[in-house]
Amino acid sequence: MAKSILDAKAVGQDELLGAIDLGSNSFHLAIARLDHDEVRKIASISEKVQLAAGLDENNVLSEEAMQRGLDCLRRFAQHVTEVEPHRLRIVATNALRKAVNAQEFIRRASEVLPKPIEIIAGREEARLIYLGVSHSNASTDKRLVIDIGGGSTEFIIGQGFEPIETESLQMGCVAFTRKFFADGKITAAAFEKAAKATQAELLSIAKRYKKVGWDNAIASSGTAKAARLVLQELGLADEVITLGGLEMLKQKLIKLGHIDRIEFAGVKAHRQAVFPAGVAELLTIMQTLGIDELGYSDGALREGVMYDMLGRLDDEDVRDRSVTALAQRYSMDIKQAGRVTTACARLFDEAKDSLGLDKEDGDLLRRAASLYEIGLAISHSNYHKHSAYLLEHSDIAGFSQAGQARLAQIVLHHRRKLKGDTLETVEQLGGRKLAYLCLILRLAVQANQSRTTKAAPIMLRVVRPNDWRVSVGAGLHADLITAQLQTDVAQFAKWGVSLQVI
Amino acid sequence: MAKSILDAKAVGQDELLGAIDLGSNSFHLAIARLDHDEVRKIASISEKVQLAAGLDENNVLSEEAMQRGLDCLRRFAQHVTEVEPHRLRIVATNALRKAVNAQEFIRRASEVLPKPIEIIAGREEARLIYLGVSHSNASTDKRLVIDIGGGSTEFIIGQGFEPIETESLQMGCVAFTRKFFADGKITAAAFEKAAKATQAELLSIAKRYKKVGWDNAIASSGTAKAARLVLQELGLADEVITLGGLEMLKQKLIKLGHIDRIEFAGVKAHRQAVFPAGVAELLTIMQTLGIDELGYSDGALREGVMYDMLGRLDDEDVRDRSVTALAQRYSMDIKQAGRVTTACARLFDEAKDSLGLDKEDGDLLRRAASLYEIGLAISHSNYHKHSAYLLEHSDIAGFSQAGQARLAQIVLHHRRKLKGDTLETVEQLGGRKLAYLCLILRLAVQANQSRTTKAAPIMLRVVRPNDWRVSVGAGLHADLITAQLQTDVAQFAKWGVSLQVI
Repeated sequence: MAKSILDAKAVGQDELLGAIDLGSNSFHLAIARLDHDEVRKIASISEKVQLAAGLDENNVLSEEAMQRGLDCLRRFAQHVTEVEPHRLRIVATNALRKAVNAQEFIRRASEVLPKPIEIIAGREEARLIYLGVSHSNASTDKRLVIDIGGGSTEFIIGQGFEPIETESLQMGCVAFTRKFFADGKITAAAFEKAAKATQAELLSIAKRYKKVGWDNAIASSGTAKAARLVLQELGLADEVITLGGLEMLKQKLIKLGHIDRIEFAGVKAHRQAVFPAGVAELLTIMQTLGIDELGYSDGALREGVMYDMLGRLDDEDVRDRSVTALAQRYSMDIKQAGRVTTACARLFDEAKDSLGLDKEDGDLLRRAASLYEIGLAISHSNYHKHSAYLLEHSDIAGFSQAGQARLAQIVLHHRRKLKGDTLETVEQLGGRKLAYLCLILRLAVQANQSRTTKAAPIMLRVVRPNDWRVSVGAGLHADLITAQLQTDVAQFAKWGVSLQVI
Repeated sequence: MAKSILDAKAVGQDELLGAIDLGSNSFHLAIARLDHDEVRKIASISEKVQLAAGLDENNVLSEEAMQRGLDCLRRFAQHVTEVEPHRLRIVATNALRKAVNAQEFIRRASEVLPKPIEIIAGREEARLIYLGVSHSNASTDKRLVIDIGGGSTEFIIGQGFEPIETESLQMGCVAFTRKFFADGKITAAAFEKAAKATQAELLSIAKRYKKVGWDNAIASSGTAKAARLVLQELGLADEVITLGGLEMLKQKLIKLGHIDRIEFAGVKAHRQAVFPAGVAELLTIMQTLGIDELGYSDGALREGVMYDMLGRLDDEDVRDRSVTALAQRYSMDIKQAGRVTTACARLFDEAKDSLGLDKEDGDLLRRAASLYEIGLAISHSNYHKHSAYLLEHSDIAGFSQAGQARLAQIVLHHRRKLKGDTLETVEQLGGRKLAYLCLILRLAVQANQSRTTKAAPIMLRVVRPNDWRVSVGAGLHADLITAQLQTDVAQFAKWGVSLQVI
């Protein structure tokens, strides 16, 4: 086993936080110690995995690329044995967002890693990057943050710790290298093509971003780090990346003529091939957005992931803020959400021990109960499908794609017929536990269809995991609720749960 | 050929309006004459087709039921030869909403009818019913309108000509007859079961509707008409349907014991079998919503369809109001919608003659251009898919399901890769013309990605229907727009249009 990068004696493991970031070009691991609510990084490793380079034209990830990724994760796993699983987060970005066989990779990685990989959406990535940058470089200025990745580039305007605009555009140093510098030659024409492509992508945000404005701009990525070091090395700039310096660097690169001849101390071997494309993109971004000087932040996605975890541990979970925002945006009936959430909480308490449900399951159920009706904003007919669509596809701060998919599945099955084949989807996504959460929400909604707090309460007793007894107490509509629950017995049976209404 | 029900000499055909309504129990035809902006019905026929009875448990419409429907439509078609197609509308409701093979029926009906059948959503049906009732019985009161159909029942609260609440619930006299009175026996138990089912459906709206409130309630349907006539016949009520009268009618029906023994003058032969279920539903609705007296309106869906057509002819198209409302609800960038709409209008004018496009196509394109970005409210990534989802699934007043589907398809294909198999969907839905509308929106959006009115304009020349020349004028970003259009040449080719950027 590899020697741990941590000096284990120096820190207690309950103080450790870990973040692994599966980027399109490199995988990164960072471990930090909690010091009075501050995240202090104590160890980090990066490995050039080049996952994005393993995507073919149909976005299928090759076996070789998967192997490179799994080998790297196997090494990373040895370094996080001392981090408690609930203090570790593993996120994947653009390459796995695009890979059609991402689930296979995630499944195979689950045999190596202590917890599952979460694919996060571009906007969520941007939010986390801003969280990392704003905590690493505290300031009250309004800031534009730019993070050039391998396959996507994030643009965020924010102030303090709050992002104002978050965007993720489909361009990056690996993608542009494959498109414009594939033969290794560095030419003015290749720079020109990369510039045009960058401009085209920026068109969609440039005007809006300029209107919102910023006091200063800051970059956070391997491309920016290397560019800054090279400019310093060449005496073309000091602390910040300047537009003039970058233009001279471009000319210098063209003069070199081939990536093999790049030999700057600031460009590590694994960055060499993608450096010209990164410079071309960075330069065009500065030109197009009118940026003369660009600062640099060492903290970005991994640091953001850790600060986000800190919030979750401290009960300032951004996911709850997102749930509230969604409920408002889609004019959810707040009182009804309250009734169903309360009923779910009671049923959950009655069932959790027998069903092996934990706090995280309870949180998931509570959020589903708060949002189950948002689809009504689209249409009454099939509103459960619309709720599920919105939960699966919206940019929801704090959630991974799998987290949103689980939320969507719970909501999708709260009414109408259940089917055997949809159970398969549910169980693949969240195991048998997720199916139980669906059924609990179903009971809670059926007991509250009259939308009154005076409705008869229902009680649940789970005799065995697949053997449930539900009884209706005294209160309004007790008969109707009983009848309703009885018609659902057949549905529960399709999902393997014997429901008795007593 | 059947003798026309119209005395053709009495009216000029430019004054005629026609509406055909394919209900779950009966099909209806109404023809009216325009008299100073008033719709005066001059002829009507109803036929008991019992379409809903032909749906099996998987919602497949049987061949026999299709034949019954087609035979009826063939007869109806002979009566509308004098109505201009743009003054005729043919709408279908719950039975065809549910039938999984509805498209087959529509295709076969298109060989018989002068224009296509439109399936309308439950809420749209409710809106049209209210339009019909409010024009037939003018009043300034706040009114509750109830329309018991074969498979769905609509509830509307409105004032003047404006609906305030519109709902369509899944219950009706045909459906309840099959569920609770299938053996023909009329028993207290069957009434009780139908009442429970009605109460369960009403739970979802009762509280909200009572809160909104109404001054008086009015019913419009065969069930209500028959109930009112029978109550008069029995001396149990006068002008209105009373709760007490209906309770006595229930007892009388139970005493009769079997549908074969129903022999009231007010119940036509085709209503006999579904009458007890209708009475059970109507009675429970009155009890649950606390209605003591229920008026009756002869005008309903067909009249509403005609008043809606009148609005369209008069340039007060409710569809445009809906488009504006949607754009607001989803915070569409109004300026950008304006730029793209303007560009579309110009391109449409340049291309319409060569492509055989008419005013209706232009309206469709304009509405698509006004809404193409609404999906951004869900997420930036794949927003075209979200826009299409919202347009396909939202309750949009004035649109049929096919109309919404066409709108969705245009928006869906305004960016990203085009595929051959999606072209098939598009052409099935709206012919080659719909594909052309997609491509025109595509051009207009690509020319306006910089979101500035100063962007270089583009001009279109359609040499032959599948041979397009587009040129970029002088203005901002002319180079980028040209480059963008050039990358799209390959996409147009996949849909069989040769695009040249000159």
